[in-house]
Amino acid sequence: MNPVQSDAASGHVPEAVVDLLGAIGYAELTAGLRMASDALVAPGLGVRVWMGRSAGAELEHFERIGARLHDLGHDPEAVMAPFTGPVDAFHERTRPRDWLEALIKVYVGDGIARDFYREIAQHVDDASRELIEAVLEADAQEEFVVRTLNDAIELDPPVAGRLALWARRLVGEAIAQTQYVALEREALLGLLVGGHGNGVDLADLGRMFTRLIDLHGQRMANLGLTP
Amino acid sequence: MNPVQSDAASGHVPEAVVDLLGAIGYAELTAGLRMASDALVAPGLGVRVWMGRSAGAELEHFERIGARLHDLGHDPEAVMAPFTGPVDAFHERTRPRDWLEALIKVYVGDGIARDFYREIAQHVDDASRELIEAVLEADAQEEFVVRTLNDAIELDPPVAGRLALWARRLVGEAIAQTQYVALEREALLGLLVGGHGNGVDLADLGRMFTRLIDLHGQRMANLGLTP
Repeated sequence: MNPVQSDAASGHVPEAVVDLLGAIGYAELTAGLRMASDALVAPGLGVRVWMGRSAGAELEHFERIGARLHDLGHDPEAVMAPFTGPVDAFHERTRPRDWLEALIKVYVGDGIARDFYREIAQHVDDASRELIEAVLEADAQEEFVVRTLNDAIELDPPVAGRLALWARRLVGEAIAQTQYVALEREALLGLLVGGHGNGVDLADLGRMFTRLIDLHGQRMANLGLTP
Repeated sequence: MNPVQSDAASGHVPEAVVDLLGAIGYAELTAGLRMASDALVAPGLGVRVWMGRSAGAELEHFERIGARLHDLGHDPEAVMAPFTGPVDAFHERTRPRDWLEALIKVYVGDGIARDFYREIAQHVDDASRELIEAVLEADAQEEFVVRTLNDAIELDPPVAGRLALWARRLVGEAIAQTQYVALEREALLGLLVGGHGNGVDLADLGRMFTRLIDLHGQRMANLGLTP
């Protein structure tokens, strides 16, 4: 028999990509559920509707990733299981105290997740990249969040300082948990920094985080907040 | 100019149908958000995944109804606004104390909502009926809930009594709030019972509720619970 020529075509993708889909899948599921939960305390129907739509989009991403894992012959739950600890820990450690913090969490969290997916999509097979890019689909969310947050800050300027601090904490926790996952799972670490094989350079991981933090800073500037 | 020949084709549907779509839309949004919120306390990834998928489906129904209202030239938020009070009141009065109660709420609530939609779909224009039937799309949910609840009751038989009482309270509250909405909005009441014009027979509303309660009883029997 011939050796497998195309991993993607044969339906075999490296363990690290399966891991990655599991991590993203559980992250999307949890983000959707948390956002829905936060939407219940949103002030007014407009914000609630918007948060409900965002939550629905996250849950749909989760569905797609589950379907892909299933097509690859994996049990989505089994693949996601190792990532429940770090993802849940992130959310436990970043419970919004009000809906403004919840909105910042959506904006910062979605933004950094998108940048992160974009980084790693470079290193995976075509079918997985296509899926990851679909999950990144631009949505009109951002405009709504920026407008709503700008309005809230204009109404109550001192809130800006609290929200800037909160955003910084979110990024710190996101990076800490990602690092924790990457260090526990060497194959995944290799994938994240584009290395193939042993001897992954940890400095590469640091550089990736630096890029993510730079992009985060630009988003904070859009809100008029100190990064 | 010719008079409007077909309400549905021209995009004009009676006010009562618009009302109905608003009520269903907000009910689906809220059911999705509540279920997502309850999923966060589900024991184990399996139940969480299942509840997340169900919540995603409800939010997608909400999206479709919003899109239809938009196509009909209405602002979905404005149309839903009158129904936030009764729907929120239903949920405030029926907060599950644990995930088993949450699961019963999904099963009972989805079931009665589906039967209710089926009743009223008889009285609306084709396009709206098509949409309502899409929202009813059979899903594999039921099997999962029945199996999970049966397992839980087998493990802890005394729980059956508490869950039966809980289910009865859910139906009572659902009917009370529906009645409240129908009595406040005469056009909607006419639609619910298939009347056209004045002098709607309130007894018809009672008969519809009786049919819904009968179907609810069959679902309870599937769980081995006293209706």
